[in-house]
Amino acid sequence: MKQSYIKYIEKPILDDPVLIVGLPGVGNVGKLAAEHLISALNAKLFAVLFSPHFPYHVTISEEGIIRLLNNEFYYFISKEQENDLIILRGDYQAQTISGQYEIAGVIIGLSKEFNVKKIITMGGYATGNFEDLPKVYGAINHPSLNVWFNKLDILHCEIGSPIVGAAGLLIGLAKFEKISGICLLGETPGFLTDAKAAKALLERVIAFLELQVDLSKLDEIDQEMKDKVNKIKEIEKQKGLIKQLKEKFAPSDKDLSYFG
Amino acid sequence: MKQSYIKYIEKPILDDPVLIVGLPGVGNVGKLAAEHLISALNAKLFAVLFSPHFPYHVTISEEGIIRLLNNEFYYFISKEQENDLIILRGDYQAQTISGQYEIAGVIIGLSKEFNVKKIITMGGYATGNFEDLPKVYGAINHPSLNVWFNKLDILHCEIGSPIVGAAGLLIGLAKFEKISGICLLGETPGFLTDAKAAKALLERVIAFLELQVDLSKLDEIDQEMKDKVNKIKEIEKQKGLIKQLKEKFAPSDKDLSYFG
Amino acid sequence: MKQSYIKYIEKPILDDPVLIVGLPGVGNVGKLAAEHLISALNAKLFAVLFSPHFPYHVTISEEGIIRLLNNEFYYFISKEQENDLIILRGDYQAQTISGQYEIAGVIIGLSKEFNVKKIITMGGYATGNFEDLPKVYGAINHPSLNVWFNKLDILHCEIGSPIVGAAGLLIGLAKFEKISGICLLGETPGFLTDAKAAKALLERVIAFLELQVDLSKLDEIDQEMKDKVNKIKEIEKQKGLIKQLKEKFAPSDKDLSYFG
Amino acid sequence: MKQSYIKYIEKPILDDPVLIVGLPGVGNVGKLAAEHLISALNAKLFAVLFSPHFPYHVTISEEGIIRLLNNEFYYFISKEQENDLIILRGDYQAQTISGQYEIAGVIIGLSKEFNVKKIITMGGYATGNFEDLPKVYGAINHPSLNVWFNKLDILHCEIGSPIVGAAGLLIGLAKFEKISGICLLGETPGFLTDAKAAKALLERVIAFLELQVDLSKLDEIDQEMKDKVNKIKEIEKQKGLIKQLKEKFAPSDKDLSYFG
Repeated sequence: MKQSYIKYIEKPILDDPVLIVGLPGVGNVGKLAAEHLISALNAKLFAVLFSPHFPYHVTISEEGIIRLLNNEFYYFISKEQENDLIILRGDYQAQTISGQYEIAGVIIGLSKEFNVKKIITMGGYATGNFEDLPKVYGAINHPSLNVWFNKLDILHCEIGSPIVGAAGLLIGLAKFEKISGICLLGETPGFLTDAKAAKALLERVIAFLELQVDLSKLDEIDQEMKDKVNKIKEIEKQKGLIKQLKEKFAPSDKDLSYFG
Repeated sequence: MKQSYIKYIEKPILDDPVLIVGLPGVGNVGKLAAEHLISALNAKLFAVLFSPHFPYHVTISEEGIIRLLNNEFYYFISKEQENDLIILRGDYQAQTISGQYEIAGVIIGLSKEFNVKKIITMGGYATGNFEDLPKVYGAINHPSLNVWFNKLDILHCEIGSPIVGAAGLLIGLAKFEKISGICLLGETPGFLTDAKAAKALLERVIAFLELQVDLSKLDEIDQEMKDKVNKIKEIEKQKGLIKQLKEKFAPSDKDLSYFG
Repeated sequence: MKQSYIKYIEKPILDDPVLIVGLPGVGNVGKLAAEHLISALNAKLFAVLFSPHFPYHVTISEEGIIRLLNNEFYYFISKEQENDLIILRGDYQAQTISGQYEIAGVIIGLSKEFNVKKIITMGGYATGNFEDLPKVYGAINHPSLNVWFNKLDILHCEIGSPIVGAAGLLIGLAKFEKISGICLLGETPGFLTDAKAAKALLERVIAFLELQVDLSKLDEIDQEMKDKVNKIKEIEKQKGLIKQLKEKFAPSDKDLSYFG
Repeated sequence: MKQSYIKYIEKPILDDPVLIVGLPGVGNVGKLAAEHLISALNAKLFAVLFSPHFPYHVTISEEGIIRLLNNEFYYFISKEQENDLIILRGDYQAQTISGQYEIAGVIIGLSKEFNVKKIITMGGYATGNFEDLPKVYGAINHPSLNVWFNKLDILHCEIGSPIVGAAGLLIGLAKFEKISGICLLGETPGFLTDAKAAKALLERVIAFLELQVDLSKLDEIDQEMKDKVNKIKEIEKQKGLIKQLKEKFAPSDKDLSYFG
């Protein structure tokens, strides 16, 4: 494999599709949001992107069966809304600088083929803090999208700040093809998978596209994560106590410096 | 040299060949297994893979004669079994991410040329522990191979765990060409060449292909390695004793802080 | 995006244009100088260079609107001088070795297209010291340019010393196309944006091209930077005092080693 | 510049030329040897290799004039010997893995164009020790060259040991073109430019090619280097004494922990 390419499973006929992108990144917010959307809408896999810029390992997907790392495109045909959807999830982003640009170019290529007019990318905005109601920051690739900041309760990122990886590059490259792009970044501590931030993102996406999607599963995931974190904290606390006890009663290093 | 390529010494006519791959990696388990198989079957070198993604040094192969780093393909024509064999050994794997994918692609290319229908890759699974009877973990690229886990006493890798390098990539890419692939990973401490794990792998390969191969040489290598490790341990112990003695009787650093 | 390319907004007709280059680097001296020149001359953007060798993030340029990282070409049609100008500014230089050469080649390509005969590159020369009157060091790509060292009060760089990045590569590559090149490096502490060094560079550029440009804005920027540095120093001093106080009156770590 | 290429100044007609290669490396032994040979034989520059895999800086070559980093080919037409010479020196070797292979390929390309039948590469073999009479280790790319080990007092490198960079790759690649290659490595401390090791190499090269070359200049360079090293040692010793004095009489850190 010399360059990134897309392998099609089928070529669905889609009506004015919007591309929604959630790839791994800060707090895995975008990835989790995209995967939840795929699952909630029962979207269908139709194309897989492989790249020599992904890490060079395979992953065990089920019952001992491996597969190459990839990014996957799903489609959803909406009966009620005017826009069908293409949803992109992935195992990894490119590991090299030029690979990031190459893969973004390949994704824009698919978008053009399906006549995509709008791209929504989703990611995380690391703050280091836990927030009960994570805010959502946004960026756009055309002034005409400015109205959505107010409509969807999206905050502006600071001028000059960077958006790293596919979430930013895709809407940057989309501009050249006259595809409008909006990037949504959910506030997140950054160091663990954050279902609450993913929910905050999807609330905006749903409102934007006037979709009906049940998000309660994300509350469950958030609760599971909280339980895990609390368990780890408890263990760490116990370890601390044991260490203190040991230090208090253990013989010092000096006592051990004998020979014979 | 701008890209990886294969130089043929001869193009043997092979009957339904199975490709067996053992490249360097954790504990050099796969490499050792492949090289033992080549030697035990007296397989014949027929093609050499060179790549600008291998390290940029040459190696002294014998009596002052150098050669480029490479991966080598050997063949074995079986008189009794239905499958001839292609065995791949190598000095190194690619040193770059995209080089890993490029080389794997070139190996799959050769496999297609020889109409290979099955690939067995061999590697190590690092546990950090010495085991008397190393277990063998496996992964497959098609559900139809599932029967072999039980037949050959192969354990499942944990779902989601990665298989790094050619052992995984090759069977991942093989799937696209409808070549079935099985990856065998021998449990190994990981930090030294492990003949016992190599033997555990070859026992499965032999059973799978219904071959007759003498594996006793691997027991000898294992014993040599054990002797070496014990010798090193003994030396380290001696050093420790000497250091303790020195520390006990040497003047402290403070005593040395004079001038004149 | 597989390789660096230039997107044209317009193709101005320029009369014997000189290319002036100021890209990010030590003390951002060159970048600041180029951007001041663009602003002072009200030069007009006509071409944008994109590259897969720039960092893989986008930047928020205004009011939530993102753009890809780039290098930008501006032109200025001079009514009084014989040379029109092309001025190049940029967000970043290439992040990879071969990307540096690729982008420099693309810039030389544009220079040839516009029949550029002279290139002036600007950069910083890090000394670690603050200088009231930063000196300017220079290098040329042809002996015929030697007269300018005296005329413009430019010092020679030490023989054998390197000029890193586009400022050097561009005039190195320009030589092959019979384009004369001069590189000006302003003495700078190196660790902060240095408007004083940028001014020193522009004084030479202006004299070289017999231009009229108001440089007083750079004095203002320099004063702002000085005020900031002084403020930071004051804060650091306060922090130091507070730390000293804390250390004097805080209980030592040993006092805390209790349990129960 | 997208790939390595050679720019010709002239295309000399050479009689059965031998390529002698000395590029930067351990102790700069090969580079120094090649440059001395060029200077002693008054060889003439005829071709320059540029590459996007060299570092991305330019160097000040003289009086403020810059040039791109390069590797240079010189020729020497011998009136007395059967072989003319091509001598290759360079500023740098490639900085990337695949760049090393690419550049070696380009050099072999030039060798074929001039019908080169023998390549001698020169480099250093780092031992960490100063030797009064540095030994020379060698490697060959064809058994027929074996006679030269004894004839020229060249030692065998240990089997399995690597020869890093162009010195090894070139004779490795040469083999594919039926060009014989010999690599000579002079024993050197490794951490400074070593004229004595360069002399040891050239003594063998001269004997091999039955050339007359004055090597006394290398003795001078060696003496200059020795004087420098001794001066540095003296300075370090002085510094050490001063430090000891300071430590003896300076107030300790604890004495400084006051406030007010």
